[in-house]
Amino acid sequence: MSELQELVEGVYRDLKSHIGEGKIADYIPELAKVDPKQFGIAVATLDGGFHVVGDAETSFSIQSISKVFTLTLALGKAGDTLWTRVGREPSGSAFNSIVQLEYEKGKPRNPFINAGAIAVADLILAGHQPREAIGEIVHFARFLAGDDSIAIDHEVAKSEAETGYRNIALANFMRSFGRLDHPVEHVLGVYVHHCALAMSCRQLARAGLYLAAGGNDPLLGNRVVSRERARRINSLMLMCGHYDGSGDFAFRVGLPGKSGVGGGILAVAPGKASIAVWSPGLNEYGNSQVGAAALELLAHRTGWSIFGS
Amino acid sequence: MSELQELVEGVYRDLKSHIGEGKIADYIPELAKVDPKQFGIAVATLDGGFHVVGDAETSFSIQSISKVFTLTLALGKAGDTLWTRVGREPSGSAFNSIVQLEYEKGKPRNPFINAGAIAVADLILAGHQPREAIGEIVHFARFLAGDDSIAIDHEVAKSEAETGYRNIALANFMRSFGRLDHPVEHVLGVYVHHCALAMSCRQLARAGLYLAAGGNDPLLGNRVVSRERARRINSLMLMCGHYDGSGDFAFRVGLPGKSGVGGGILAVAPGKASIAVWSPGLNEYGNSQVGAAALELLAHRTGWSIFGS
Amino acid sequence: MSELQELVEGVYRDLKSHIGEGKIADYIPELAKVDPKQFGIAVATLDGGFHVVGDAETSFSIQSISKVFTLTLALGKAGDTLWTRVGREPSGSAFNSIVQLEYEKGKPRNPFINAGAIAVADLILAGHQPREAIGEIVHFARFLAGDDSIAIDHEVAKSEAETGYRNIALANFMRSFGRLDHPVEHVLGVYVHHCALAMSCRQLARAGLYLAAGGNDPLLGNRVVSRERARRINSLMLMCGHYDGSGDFAFRVGLPGKSGVGGGILAVAPGKASIAVWSPGLNEYGNSQVGAAALELLAHRTGWSIFGS
Amino acid sequence: MSELQELVEGVYRDLKSHIGEGKIADYIPELAKVDPKQFGIAVATLDGGFHVVGDAETSFSIQSISKVFTLTLALGKAGDTLWTRVGREPSGSAFNSIVQLEYEKGKPRNPFINAGAIAVADLILAGHQPREAIGEIVHFARFLAGDDSIAIDHEVAKSEAETGYRNIALANFMRSFGRLDHPVEHVLGVYVHHCALAMSCRQLARAGLYLAAGGNDPLLGNRVVSRERARRINSLMLMCGHYDGSGDFAFRVGLPGKSGVGGGILAVAPGKASIAVWSPGLNEYGNSQVGAAALELLAHRTGWSIFGS
Repeated sequence: MSELQELVEGVYRDLKSHIGEGKIADYIPELAKVDPKQFGIAVATLDGGFHVVGDAETSFSIQSISKVFTLTLALGKAGDTLWTRVGREPSGSAFNSIVQLEYEKGKPRNPFINAGAIAVADLILAGHQPREAIGEIVHFARFLAGDDSIAIDHEVAKSEAETGYRNIALANFMRSFGRLDHPVEHVLGVYVHHCALAMSCRQLARAGLYLAAGGNDPLLGNRVVSRERARRINSLMLMCGHYDGSGDFAFRVGLPGKSGVGGGILAVAPGKASIAVWSPGLNEYGNSQVGAAALELLAHRTGWSIFGS
Repeated sequence: MSELQELVEGVYRDLKSHIGEGKIADYIPELAKVDPKQFGIAVATLDGGFHVVGDAETSFSIQSISKVFTLTLALGKAGDTLWTRVGREPSGSAFNSIVQLEYEKGKPRNPFINAGAIAVADLILAGHQPREAIGEIVHFARFLAGDDSIAIDHEVAKSEAETGYRNIALANFMRSFGRLDHPVEHVLGVYVHHCALAMSCRQLARAGLYLAAGGNDPLLGNRVVSRERARRINSLMLMCGHYDGSGDFAFRVGLPGKSGVGGGILAVAPGKASIAVWSPGLNEYGNSQVGAAALELLAHRTGWSIFGS
Repeated sequence: MSELQELVEGVYRDLKSHIGEGKIADYIPELAKVDPKQFGIAVATLDGGFHVVGDAETSFSIQSISKVFTLTLALGKAGDTLWTRVGREPSGSAFNSIVQLEYEKGKPRNPFINAGAIAVADLILAGHQPREAIGEIVHFARFLAGDDSIAIDHEVAKSEAETGYRNIALANFMRSFGRLDHPVEHVLGVYVHHCALAMSCRQLARAGLYLAAGGNDPLLGNRVVSRERARRINSLMLMCGHYDGSGDFAFRVGLPGKSGVGGGILAVAPGKASIAVWSPGLNEYGNSQVGAAALELLAHRTGWSIFGS
Repeated sequence: MSELQELVEGVYRDLKSHIGEGKIADYIPELAKVDPKQFGIAVATLDGGFHVVGDAETSFSIQSISKVFTLTLALGKAGDTLWTRVGREPSGSAFNSIVQLEYEKGKPRNPFINAGAIAVADLILAGHQPREAIGEIVHFARFLAGDDSIAIDHEVAKSEAETGYRNIALANFMRSFGRLDHPVEHVLGVYVHHCALAMSCRQLARAGLYLAAGGNDPLLGNRVVSRERARRINSLMLMCGHYDGSGDFAFRVGLPGKSGVGGGILAVAPGKASIAVWSPGLNEYGNSQVGAAALELLAHRTGWSIFGS
C-alpha cells in the first residue's frame, strides 16, 4: 500500500467515531432523506493515482460544488467579460443573503454565493434553451470526470425548485436591476439542475484534477482552461468557497475548496492533487463537518497547504 | 547578474513609466507630504539572497503592514485565545467600516481591519505601559529585520493621532461592548505608533522572511513562530490583507500580502521568498497602484503564485 | 362661493405655474404614458361639502393609496392578529427595500411599504380565490366612495405584473421565511390589481371620509371601523405613509397621508376633512411634488395641522 | 375636584399595581441607583391648571427629554440651517446605532437619536465655551419651567461621561466626516450635562406648555418659538421621539412625545395640555413602561389623540 493511501486511510480511521456529526441540510426536502452516517474520501494525484476510502463510490448531491464547473464553463463562453456581471470579493455574509445585493445594485459579490451562480447560469444560457444549457453542463461534468454515467438527480432538482423561494427572490431581485438576460424561470431551471448533479467522491476528485494541474487534464492531456484561469479559479475557491466560513477554512485547511450543502467538498492542492470528501452533516457555516475535519488532517499530514509546508 | 535580479529589474523597467500614478493618502497630513514619484522593490530569498531595485533603501511609513508584526507578537503572548477577541473572516467592506462591528457586537472580523488591529494592540498592552508596548514592537521589528536603525516616525504618529477620529470612534465603540481591556487612549497610542514605523523595502522584505520560511528566520536560524502559525498568518494575509480589494489581489497576484496606505506592500511566496514593494500612489481600494502591478508581474514571471504555477 | 372653496382655488392658483414639475414614475410602463400636466384637488368635509378644483374628476392610478383601503379591510377580517404579520414602525429606507426584511426575518416593518402590503394582501386572500379577493377590494372601494363606477385599470395591472421583479423578489423572500399563507402568484395578483384601482380626487376624498370622522361614514352614517381603529390607521399613515419622506411630510404638512406613485395623495384632517390631491410628477422621495406642495399650503392656510394650529 | 384631576387620579389608580415593572437603565451607573417604585403624572393645561398625582414633585434625570429643549434652543440660534446638519426622518433603528450614520456619511437622521442631539449640542456651542453653553441650556430650562431651582445632577453627568463610550464613538465618527465644528470633548461635555438635568413631572409639564400652545408661553404670554416651529417640533417628537418604538407610541398613544432613559416622558396635546409622566422601569424599546401605559390611558380617556377623538 502506498504512503498516500495509508495516510488517507489514517485520516478516515481517526475521524470514524465522528461520522454522523453535524446537521443535515433540511431546507431541500429531498436532501433531508440522506443517511447521515456516510463518509468518503478520494484523492486523485496528477500522475493518475487514486486513493479512496469509505463511501467514496457513493453518489451524492454535489449542490454548490457544481458552481466551480459552471464558472469554468461560463468563463470559456463569456471570457473575462463575466467579471462585469459578477464580482470576485468575499461576501462577508451568508450564502443566500440579499442585503449586499441591494447595496451593490444587483451585482453579486462573487460567483460562489447563490446570486453569483445565478448570474453565471444566465451567461451559460446565452443562445440556448434551458434544456440545452443543462445538457451542456452535464456533458461538461462527464467530460471532466471521464465518466458518462454522471447524471442529474431529478427528484432533488424538483424538490429544490419547489421550495427555493429565496433563490426565486434573489433572481427576481437581480432582474429588477436589469442584471439577467433570460427569464427568471429559465435561469433558475438551469441553476437547480446543475446543483442537483449527483457524483461520487471518486468522480469529483477526478473532475477537479484540471485545477490542480494548471488547467490541463493530466490524464488525457486535454487543456480545459488556460494556466492563468486555473490559478484564478483556485483563488476564488479559496476566497469565497465556503461562504462566511471561507476564512476559517483557509486558516485551518489552507487549500482552495468549494463546499456544497449535500455535505461534499472539493479541494485542490495545486501541482499535487485534487481531493473530494463527503459526509452529510454540516457545521455552523453550512459546510461538511467531518469533511472539513478530514481535509484539515489531510493538509496537515501531507504538508500540502498552499501557505507553506 | 542572477536571473532573479534580472527579472526584478525587468519588472521595474516595465512599470517605470507608471511611477507617480494613483492617489496619495491624504487623510494623515504627514503622509500627504511624500514625493509620489518613488518606487522600490526588494526580494529576499530563503537562501539569503537580496534583489533590490529603485527606491528600495528609502524608508517609508509602513502603516498597516505593521499589523502583520503586531499580530505575530500578540499571538506569541496570548496564543489562540486571541481568536476570541478577533475573527478571521474577510470583512466585505472598507478598512475602517463600523457597520459590521455593530452587527457583530464589537468583535472585529479580522486582525487586519483597523478595529482588529486595535484589538491586537490591546492584547499587546497586557502588563505594560503604552511606552513599553511600543518599545516592544519596535524591538520586534528590529529583530525581524536584523537592523537596529529601524524607528518610529513620530511626526507621522502625531499627525495620525490628531486626525484619526474614525479610529477613536472604532476604539470607543469596541469599548462600549466591553471589548478592550485598556484605556482607549493607551490602545490608540500603541496603534498609531506601530503604524508609524518607518522601514525600507529591503528591511521589510528581510523582516518578512520568517513567513516564507515556515516560521523560522532562515538567515539566523531562530524560530519566530511555529510552522503552523506561519501558515495561518499567511492565510489571513491572503484573505484579508487588502481590505475590500483582497479578492482582487488574490485573483491577480496570488500571494499572501499586506498593504499599507503609505504605499508599501509586503508579500510572501511560501518556501521561496519575501517581497516588499513601495510606491505611494494608491488605487481605488487604497492599495499601492504601481506596487500591486509590480507584484502581479513578479508573481506571473516567477510562477510563485500559491494557486499553481 | 364658500371660504373653503376659495381657499382651495387659491392653492390651485398659486401652484398652477408648477404643474408638470417632478418626474413621472416610469418603472411601470403603463404609468409612464400619463400626461404630466394635470393637477387636481378635492376636499370633502364631514358635513358633506365637496370642494374641487382642476383635474379633480379625472381618474388616475391610485397605486399605494389603495394600501389604506386594503389595510382597513384586512383589519376587519383578521383583527389585531394582523400585527403579528406586519410591524408598525417607519422603515427608515426606500419603499421597496429588501434589506430590513432580511434583518427582521421576513416580517415587514409596516403595512405601507410594498412588503407590508403584500402581507396584507395575503391576509385578504384567506378563504378566497384571487379573483374573489380582488372583487372584494373593488367592492369596498366603491362602498367607501359611494360610487359603483370605480374599477381596476387592467392595462396598469398587467403592466405592473409583467415588470414587477422587485415585488416578486419581496414576496418570495417573505415566503422563504414562511410569512405567506398563499401562493406567491396569487398574493401578487391581488396586490397588483388593487394598486391598479383608478379613482378621481373627488372619489378618493369621499372614500377617505371615514378616517376623518372617527371610523364612521358621516354621509351615510355607516360605521366602517371602530373609532380606535380609525385613529390607529391615521397614525400609521402619518408615520409611514410617504416611505422615507414620511418625516419630511409630517414636518411640512402635518397631516396623516398616503401617497402613490401615480401622483395621488390622500390626506386626513381628523374631525374636519378628507383631502385628495393629484399631479403625476414625483419628488425625490417618490411622492407627488405639486400634490405635496398643495397639501402644505392647504394645511397652513386652514390651520388643520394635527400638530397645532 | 375637577373632572381632569379625577381622570388623572383614575389613571394613577388603575396602574398602581404595575409600579416597579420594567427594567431600570443600568448603562449609566448613577441611574441604576434610582428606586424603581416611583410613578408620577403631571398635566398642565393652557389655562394654567395643574393636575398632579403620585411622585410628580420628585426630581429625576430627564435624559433625552432634554433634547426637545436643546433642539428648540438651537433652532433659535441657527434657524433652519440646522437641517443641513441633522435630518428629520425616523431612524428605523436603535437610539445609539452607528450603522445608519455610516451610510449617510455622518449626518444623523433626526435630532432625537444620540448622534442628532450631539450635532445639536455642537450648534449650541457656537461662540461659546462649554461651561457657557451648559449654563445657557440650564437657564432656558428654568425659563420654560418658570422655576430657578432646576439644576444639573453632576453625579449623573460624571457617571455618563465616564462610561459613555458609545457616544464618544458617535461623536468621533461624525468628526471624521467633518460634521462637528467643536472639539469632541466640548460637544460631549455639553451633551452629558444637558442629559443630566433633573426635573420633576410638574416642572417638565410646565416647561412643555409652549409646544401645546402654538409656541407661546400661555401663562406669561412670552413667545418662545414661532407657531410653525412649535408644530414642527411636535411633528419631530411624534415621528422620532421614542427611538424604534415611535410607531408603537403613535399607534397606542397618539400624542407627540419624547422619552428619556431615566423613565420620564413629556407628551404634548396641541391646543390642550402638556403632560409629563415618570416611572423608572423601561420597556423593550427603552421607554418608561408604566409611563407609556399612563399616557395611553390618559389619551384614550381625554380623547386628546391628534389622530381623532
